[in-house]
Amino acid sequence: MAYDGTRYAGFQVQPNAPTVQGELERALTELCNEPVRITGAGRTDAGVHATGQVINFRTASALDGERIGRGVNALVPADIAISAVEPVGEDFHARYSATGRTYEYRIRNGPERHPLERHREHWLPVPLDRSALDRATRLLHGRHDFAAFAAGEGGVREVRSATWSAQEELLRFEITADAFLRGMVRAIVGTLLWVGRGRIGVEDFGALIEARDRSKAGPSAPANGLCLISVEYGGRQRNTMRRNEDDEE
Amino acid sequence: MAYDGTRYAGFQVQPNAPTVQGELERALTELCNEPVRITGAGRTDAGVHATGQVINFRTASALDGERIGRGVNALVPADIAISAVEPVGEDFHARYSATGRTYEYRIRNGPERHPLERHREHWLPVPLDRSALDRATRLLHGRHDFAAFAAGEGGVREVRSATWSAQEELLRFEITADAFLRGMVRAIVGTLLWVGRGRIGVEDFGALIEARDRSKAGPSAPANGLCLISVEYGGRQRNTMRRNEDDEE
Repeated sequence: MAYDGTRYAGFQVQPNAPTVQGELERALTELCNEPVRITGAGRTDAGVHATGQVINFRTASALDGERIGRGVNALVPADIAISAVEPVGEDFHARYSATGRTYEYRIRNGPERHPLERHREHWLPVPLDRSALDRATRLLHGRHDFAAFAAGEGGVREVRSATWSAQEELLRFEITADAFLRGMVRAIVGTLLWVGRGRIGVEDFGALIEARDRSKAGPSAPANGLCLISVEYGGRQRNTMRRNEDDEE
Repeated sequence: MAYDGTRYAGFQVQPNAPTVQGELERALTELCNEPVRITGAGRTDAGVHATGQVINFRTASALDGERIGRGVNALVPADIAISAVEPVGEDFHARYSATGRTYEYRIRNGPERHPLERHREHWLPVPLDRSALDRATRLLHGRHDFAAFAAGEGGVREVRSATWSAQEELLRFEITADAFLRGMVRAIVGTLLWVGRGRIGVEDFGALIEARDRSKAGPSAPANGLCLISVEYGGRQRNTMRRNEDDEE
């Protein structure tokens, strides 16, 4: 599923605030004619988007996947959309069964503001050292305790790929890991931007990872640039019951 | 200049409705410390966007272009942005001096809604005959009285280029003419989509142009897909005083 996170207080339900989960549960409850609770693969923060979020839910409804998909799409606001619905086994859990997640972070690195992209791209009109960015980014690869970039508790995560690509003024950072700590991608991007702007060196970035101290790393990059683009199931299967409930962006 | 037209009643000032011109004039009036009126090259309709709009205004302010650009950008909402400001001669008129305009129309032609693109792309989840679209589009080239596609009076305009391009599910229609009649691009796109969906043939499209009867052509395509991407000055210079005040999208 996909959503424009701009006007939501995040994915996860909370009282007195619009959330993606809240909208989906309201629609599914109406459609299935019974209370429905959903689980999302990634609990994205306020303002963070998704084009490849995965959710699961359980219902006794006799409606098939296609009807549920169409029905939900007719009931949710235009900034949320279901792409596909399929039956899964009882032991499937959108978050615990996931074996990988990929996020992208978009930066508009040019002198002009682009109003049409303001909800999707972080505008940064300062020069960036792309080579330093790339070298620091390579230090993320592999298994590390990423406490330096965690909003909550730290923990070992495996970054399988992390790369920058550029198309004219648009810089795209794409990162894949088995899982992410809370706030991890935005803290990584914010700290990498310190490197790109020359505020710290590539070696300093490596030392920050090692130090596992969030207070030494850079600020979180703004939410609008971040998007959960895919969730992976199968492949290198993890333990389906992971303990860190604090995971995800 | 650029804007996201989503929340505006159009470019042109009107009472009791938010307009791009209204926001710009408010900002310029405050910045220049005198009443400022602006003229835009294209008077885009409600919900239509721009990435290459051009405006002109006259002021006695001693501020230079860069300061005016920065100042306006600080005073207008985030969905409007000035790219550059430069001095022009007394006889320059953003609309009458323009010798060409280019609009793009974006269609998301796939089964899934894309929430993040909903303000920028018209979603059309039906098969389109690209070959028929291309053949009909070629009939637009050259000088014609485009009354068939005019929201108001007709008139001869010269279409210099009109092409479709595709990148995965995103179809982009780009059209350049000396000038456009009011509502012309959206009426052309709406009618071309009749061709693409097989509702009328390519020859019928040609006959519609010849008939010069708006009531026979297709519906206007939705505003959200349309964007004014550039305005041309110089080159084949037109008469700087054009009479049709009703021009533009």
